[in-house]
Amino acid sequence: MVGSVEIICIGNELLIGKIADTNAQWLAKRVTALGMRVRRITVVGDDVDEISTVTREVLSRKPRFILTTGGLGPTFDDRTLEGIAKALNRKLETNSEALRMIEDKYRRYVAEGRIEKFEMTSYRVKMARLPEGAEPLSNPVGTAPGVKIEQDESIIISLPGVPQEMKAIFEDSVAALIKEASGNMVFYEASIQVTGLPESEVAPIIDQVMHDNPYVYIKSHPKMAEKTSYLELHFSTTSDNMDMAKQRVGRAIIQISEIIRGKGGRIKPINP
Amino acid sequence: MVGSVEIICIGNELLIGKIADTNAQWLAKRVTALGMRVRRITVVGDDVDEISTVTREVLSRKPRFILTTGGLGPTFDDRTLEGIAKALNRKLETNSEALRMIEDKYRRYVAEGRIEKFEMTSYRVKMARLPEGAEPLSNPVGTAPGVKIEQDESIIISLPGVPQEMKAIFEDSVAALIKEASGNMVFYEASIQVTGLPESEVAPIIDQVMHDNPYVYIKSHPKMAEKTSYLELHFSTTSDNMDMAKQRVGRAIIQISEIIRGKGGRIKPINP
Repeated sequence: MVGSVEIICIGNELLIGKIADTNAQWLAKRVTALGMRVRRITVVGDDVDEISTVTREVLSRKPRFILTTGGLGPTFDDRTLEGIAKALNRKLETNSEALRMIEDKYRRYVAEGRIEKFEMTSYRVKMARLPEGAEPLSNPVGTAPGVKIEQDESIIISLPGVPQEMKAIFEDSVAALIKEASGNMVFYEASIQVTGLPESEVAPIIDQVMHDNPYVYIKSHPKMAEKTSYLELHFSTTSDNMDMAKQRVGRAIIQISEIIRGKGGRIKPINP
Repeated sequence: MVGSVEIICIGNELLIGKIADTNAQWLAKRVTALGMRVRRITVVGDDVDEISTVTREVLSRKPRFILTTGGLGPTFDDRTLEGIAKALNRKLETNSEALRMIEDKYRRYVAEGRIEKFEMTSYRVKMARLPEGAEPLSNPVGTAPGVKIEQDESIIISLPGVPQEMKAIFEDSVAALIKEASGNMVFYEASIQVTGLPESEVAPIIDQVMHDNPYVYIKSHPKMAEKTSYLELHFSTTSDNMDMAKQRVGRAIIQISEIIRGKGGRIKPINP
């Protein structure tokens, strides 16, 4: 889909459930706030063929941006760029700008006394082996640069898996590109808590209110707490005008609240 | 891949980053502990065509199990079974066993005084509309049953998105199937913390120790804390014998610890 974003998260640790995919959540939230729509998130392991296959599949859906996380480091199983190069039929080559970024980083580590000395071993040079035609993105936090590659109608951005590094490169080098591509759209959301009515009774009310408020998307989430259960209703909209977005969501919340109270339900706002 | 598992998580809330995909993590961890390998996790929105497309794509890779979460409830955007039915070219039909499960649940809610009375509205019957040939799986916590469908070499299991319901149905009706399909394999993992050596110096050591311990997989994760950074090394193996699995991981940890200490690094165990 032209104009959408796909996220690919790479790492065996995600497939064995060692960690939750908080990188995907963070990126999805930021992309949405910047006015673009995330269409799909895919998680694969540290395997060149899997990475290459999923990259080709995602490219065939023609998203404007493909964001990848993980697999840029110095170890044997950091294979993201190898997989992407394979998907694009490009060679990996030592990128001189990336190499300079990495050398500068180790030089600074020595200056700060964090390491005694350094050599550009093959493991360190590996982080500068980018697909032909790629552009390195400076990593203000860690060692491995991010990578930007244009391919057909898509821009592929590869970010490290370490959350602090991923976020820093995204904010420095990616957010503005997405904002511009979205045409400066904004996303607005709000939630309310409903008690006293089961989800199956709220379902037809949501249908009605979404029909009357065509720009607002409403989704119900049943929640269970220790001794009580409730329904969270989430309202969202995308607009080129934040005031308009807030008005639309506000109007839908007022209407649904009146109907739910009329049927004996109780409403509480949920602070974000 | 015959013998593997794929997970499909369905929900717009995941694509806007409203929540982290903790269901995927929980399922990945349980499947891994039961001795099977998760090959891929895919997240899509509440869209029949997307759900249908991804179901077909996943089926073409022939995993033994396909686990889906989300989209089984009574609201308009709970469309998982519609998407799967479309992918399989099956019709949706009212499943009498599922209908009985749902009626029993509302009858109990009335008996417990949680609701005054109930009618089997179209929104409630919707939760019993399963693809032809599907088998409902009893939901001990909530209303919507899980669903089991056999298709070609795969078993598709659809679970609700509410974590408590998803977990309860998995433990009651799915875990034993996966355990049996794995041939009763077990997964064992352990981690250590390394300080005083950068990841790029540990990388060649990992290569050596993995070469000497062919059944053990080692992955390094750079971690940043407030004032310090360290490297977490994660060791894992799968075996038909838990003692053997522990021995293999233990041996790799002893070898790597000796080499890292010899190069001036420090080691600390990480308790799970």
